[in-house]
Amino acid sequence: MKIVSLEERGFTVELKAKLGKEIILFDGAMGTVLQQRGLKAGDVPEKLNIENSKEIIDIHKSYLKAGAEIITTNTFGANALKMQEIKYSVEEIITAGVENARQAVIELGVDAAVALDMGPLGELLEPMGSLTFDEAYDLYQQQVLVGVEYGADLIHIETISDLYEARAAVLAAKENSNLPVFCTLTFEEDGRTFTGGSIRSMISVLEGLGVDGIGLNCSLGPEKLEPLVEEVLEYSEKPVILQANAGLPIVEDGETVFKISPEDYFKPLARLYEKGLAVVGGCCGTNEEFISLIADNLKNKKVKERNVINESLVCSPSQYVNLAGVNVVGERINPTGKAAFKQALRNDDLDYILKVAVEEVDAGADILDVNLGLPEIEEKEMMVKIIKELQGILDTPLQIDSSDPEVIEEALKYYNGIAIVNSVNGEIEVLENTFPAVKKYGAAVIGLTMDDDGIPDTAAGRFEIAKRIVKKAAEYGISRDKIIIDCLTLTASAQQEGVKETLKALKMVKNELGVKTTLGVSNVSFGLPARPVLNRTFLSMALYQGLNLPIIDPNDEEMMAAVKAAAVLNNIDQGATEYIKYMAEVETNSAKTENSQEKNKSHDL
Amino acid sequence: MKIVSLEERGFTVELKAKLGKEIILFDGAMGTVLQQRGLKAGDVPEKLNIENSKEIIDIHKSYLKAGAEIITTNTFGANALKMQEIKYSVEEIITAGVENARQAVIELGVDAAVALDMGPLGELLEPMGSLTFDEAYDLYQQQVLVGVEYGADLIHIETISDLYEARAAVLAAKENSNLPVFCTLTFEEDGRTFTGGSIRSMISVLEGLGVDGIGLNCSLGPEKLEPLVEEVLEYSEKPVILQANAGLPIVEDGETVFKISPEDYFKPLARLYEKGLAVVGGCCGTNEEFISLIADNLKNKKVKERNVINESLVCSPSQYVNLAGVNVVGERINPTGKAAFKQALRNDDLDYILKVAVEEVDAGADILDVNLGLPEIEEKEMMVKIIKELQGILDTPLQIDSSDPEVIEEALKYYNGIAIVNSVNGEIEVLENTFPAVKKYGAAVIGLTMDDDGIPDTAAGRFEIAKRIVKKAAEYGISRDKIIIDCLTLTASAQQEGVKETLKALKMVKNELGVKTTLGVSNVSFGLPARPVLNRTFLSMALYQGLNLPIIDPNDEEMMAAVKAAAVLNNIDQGATEYIKYMAEVETNSAKTENSQEKNKSHDL
Ligand SMILES: [Zn+2]
Ligand SMILES: [Zn+2]
Ligand SMILES: [Zn+2]
Repeated sequence: MKIVSLEERGFTVELKAKLGKEIILFDGAMGTVLQQRGLKAGDVPEKLNIENSKEIIDIHKSYLKAGAEIITTNTFGANALKMQEIKYSVEEIITAGVENARQAVIELGVDAAVALDMGPLGELLEPMGSLTFDEAYDLYQQQVLVGVEYGADLIHIETISDLYEARAAVLAAKENSNLPVFCTLTFEEDGRTFTGGSIRSMISVLEGLGVDGIGLNCSLGPEKLEPLVEEVLEYSEKPVILQANAGLPIVEDGETVFKISPEDYFKPLARLYEKGLAVVGGCCGTNEEFISLIADNLKNKKVKERNVINESLVCSPSQYVNLAGVNVVGERINPTGKAAFKQALRNDDLDYILKVAVEEVDAGADILDVNLGLPEIEEKEMMVKIIKELQGILDTPLQIDSSDPEVIEEALKYYNGIAIVNSVNGEIEVLENTFPAVKKYGAAVIGLTMDDDGIPDTAAGRFEIAKRIVKKAAEYGISRDKIIIDCLTLTASAQQEGVKETLKALKMVKNELGVKTTLGVSNVSFGLPARPVLNRTFLSMALYQGLNLPIIDPNDEEMMAAVKAAAVLNNIDQGATEYIKYMAEVETNSAKTENSQEKNKSHDL
Repeated sequence: MKIVSLEERGFTVELKAKLGKEIILFDGAMGTVLQQRGLKAGDVPEKLNIENSKEIIDIHKSYLKAGAEIITTNTFGANALKMQEIKYSVEEIITAGVENARQAVIELGVDAAVALDMGPLGELLEPMGSLTFDEAYDLYQQQVLVGVEYGADLIHIETISDLYEARAAVLAAKENSNLPVFCTLTFEEDGRTFTGGSIRSMISVLEGLGVDGIGLNCSLGPEKLEPLVEEVLEYSEKPVILQANAGLPIVEDGETVFKISPEDYFKPLARLYEKGLAVVGGCCGTNEEFISLIADNLKNKKVKERNVINESLVCSPSQYVNLAGVNVVGERINPTGKAAFKQALRNDDLDYILKVAVEEVDAGADILDVNLGLPEIEEKEMMVKIIKELQGILDTPLQIDSSDPEVIEEALKYYNGIAIVNSVNGEIEVLENTFPAVKKYGAAVIGLTMDDDGIPDTAAGRFEIAKRIVKKAAEYGISRDKIIIDCLTLTASAQQEGVKETLKALKMVKNELGVKTTLGVSNVSFGLPARPVLNRTFLSMALYQGLNLPIIDPNDEEMMAAVKAAAVLNNIDQGATEYIKYMAEVETNSAKTENSQEKNKSHDL
């Protein structure tokens, strides 16, 4: 495998320097232009790279003449799965595709980059389809390797509607090249991708994986996509890309047509330019006229500055949790001290574990901790299996609870979202073993304020460890937003003076280090009577101190009630809306329970 | 009435200057010396002031020769109640008594002060006896006025075993003279007075009333009294006085004898001198030999410095509450919003109110708030009546809850202990109307952080009002230990952002002003569902912030449980002893309730 370094390719360096500072112009459609030029519906456009390279080069040249600075290879579907039906190999198609684009650039003698185009694989991934994540990765990897070898300047992943598939593609691109990676997803008018993914989750996941440009393409005209692009501009720190369609495709007299004129196409782009759009081009239905009009108006213009809302989210494709708020982490997926759970793990009884998870979510957990540590099972395999199952049936973000860096890395790889890693501690070796994967997948990470010498007695001692964790994280490029410090709840019956130190440390690390905080709560009452009273009193205190992520049993109504009440008192749940809703549900549920008990009673009589 | 100013009497000025800095020597017994000299048991010794003044002067002189710097008039029982049985008036007896003592001083030409001696009245006060507090006051006032007029140098109240009686005497002395006032109580070997009063309550009450010297006399020998005197030395800021007996009186051959020798008597005094004793003399069984021996060893010696433990207590005679801890104030004696309570007040149904009080105490209230504000009743009369009833049946300290300075003053006058006044606020007029009585009776006082302009929105605004209250209090000689600031719980449903300001202000006033804190809690949840959840969550937060005096319904087990749990978590209830005890009681009680319900059930069947 020959990966061409950025240094060897001048334009890519220039592109990178320009990206996000000056507008970069993409080309427009390939497929619909080919159809206009006579390609029949059902024909495979990628074949033309070999069978009619002149036509392809001609289209590339028309975009270059219009002003495009990046042209996209005619390789949208050039993956081994889709190419089964034709006689050419992926390598042949992609080689020809890159060469055609390069040829156009050379013939015109312009400065332009060649983007290796990678579209969806054409089959749904698990759990909706049968394609595994690893298979998807392999398919994309093959394309990337060929593209890199034959000199693509960047990798452009586009028209993806499943975030999991985008993850496989981006990972394959990042792990097998040094090229800039752009990724644009396709959204429906309701602001979701076909598989339910949201803008905010897309931003978190793709930024977490380190893409160089992020945005939307295809499906709708630019006016319909405008509010969605605005959301990306509001929340993403990366250069924002838009390649809209020339409107929705309409079938007239058996032909697919796009009704938006270049002028109408440009109007929303002009508005989005004012809001900070950085990379712009066209998708289906656009042609060189569209690009030419954009070039006339925007080429080389400075990208407008944005005030990005910098949030720290964990997410599944469709659901996100802002770590700055107060969110309940369900603690029940954990075999420690639970015979039935252990038995389920030993018996590979996934239903049992999924049932626990569903109960936690129904009770209001915002995040689920997943701990499968049991000596007699293969933790790594089981973790991946359970994560796949959980993300198949639930939208709640997950927290990977393991002390084994390999388990953590594998879990992060297969988790379709941004997870929390639980946990690292102040030991340098632990940090060095775990942080690379945390960084790679953009995960959040819990740091325990303990190290080889145990848990410091004082808040100041625990603060020092938190500082060490934050500093080491920075060396790996992990920002403070992604760090959650656990100041460690001590047991009042054994270390009573330490209980207050935990709460003191919590406020210190939060205010002075600007990190988020978590605590497992129930340990505080170990060995004392009326444990729920101590637990909820301690929880209330910790929430007052600014606890973000209480790790509790969400099926304990009293604990949940304390969380909801604290949010009212801390002026987080403004107007007490959530509190009132929660209490009404609790009442309804208990009324139901009573009713059904009543019924059972009369049944007995 | 002619009150001789201190300026007119040189010795008193000198005495005051010496007090607490150099040892001051009192004289020894009068009564037992007279018996040794032939006074028959049953005879009234005070008669001898008139009928045998030579003998009295002679005894005084013997003490002066032995080195006494204060001699005590032979007026121990010279009150109108006891003097009914003799033909002389109180005025005649006291006049003669003071003149005899003065005569002895003049004859010997020494510098010595004449102390007007006032003993117990000889009848028990309400509720144990029938004597009212006002009657007791009047009896003492009569003595004081005569003593002052005839030139006593100080007032010495002694051998009192009822703190209420001591209060009447000290108040009469303070309100009717400018003389130094000493007060010594008589304790049993168990550390209590005959009526159950404790050393700590004595200290608080007498210091609160502004006595100039405090201590113990009579009943036991100095060795038996030593631990009690040590406790006074440990906790009282006032010069400490001891006039012990020469041992327990023993009847031998029909004669009362005291067995301790001057040498044995002195040994404990020498030890107590090392610990800071300031005023020393003798009681029953002592004579000039005892005083002479003390003088040989201690006269004019410097009083040793003490490290006094400076506590802020509120108390009844037998029970005290340290305001520095966390103590529950029962809120239920209050007609606001309670029809039955209002009706009880209107019907003068004291039993109803007492029943509420007993329930609160049984549930664990440490202090009872007493609010009787109802427009149609005479608040002042009712307040005094209820306070007398409450202190007759309960030992729990009281909190006088009224906005009328007259009601407060009258309540403080009749309250046998140190009460909390609830409340003043930041209005200067309110402070000026209320602080004189607070100072006079040594009460603690709650200051609300509001004024004519209402409640400030911010913690800083409330802190400013607290500062103003503390500053104004200092002008009246009220120290910070006596000040409890209420930062005012706002209603989350109406002023949600203000809830946190209250908790912030609480910590500010506590840490920066060094005052104690209180909060009524339940207001926070007004207008929201599941109020107990909000109340106990808010309470937990406030306790973490350092709340000293939650004002709550102690019969609400969840609220009490939160208080007990917070004390464990804040490391106040060390070893969780109180918590475990409380939870065991709750369990026992609920088991009892269940059992009795079970019984009722089987009864029904
Ligand atoms: Zn398209
Ligand atoms: Zn005596
Ligand atoms: Zn005496």
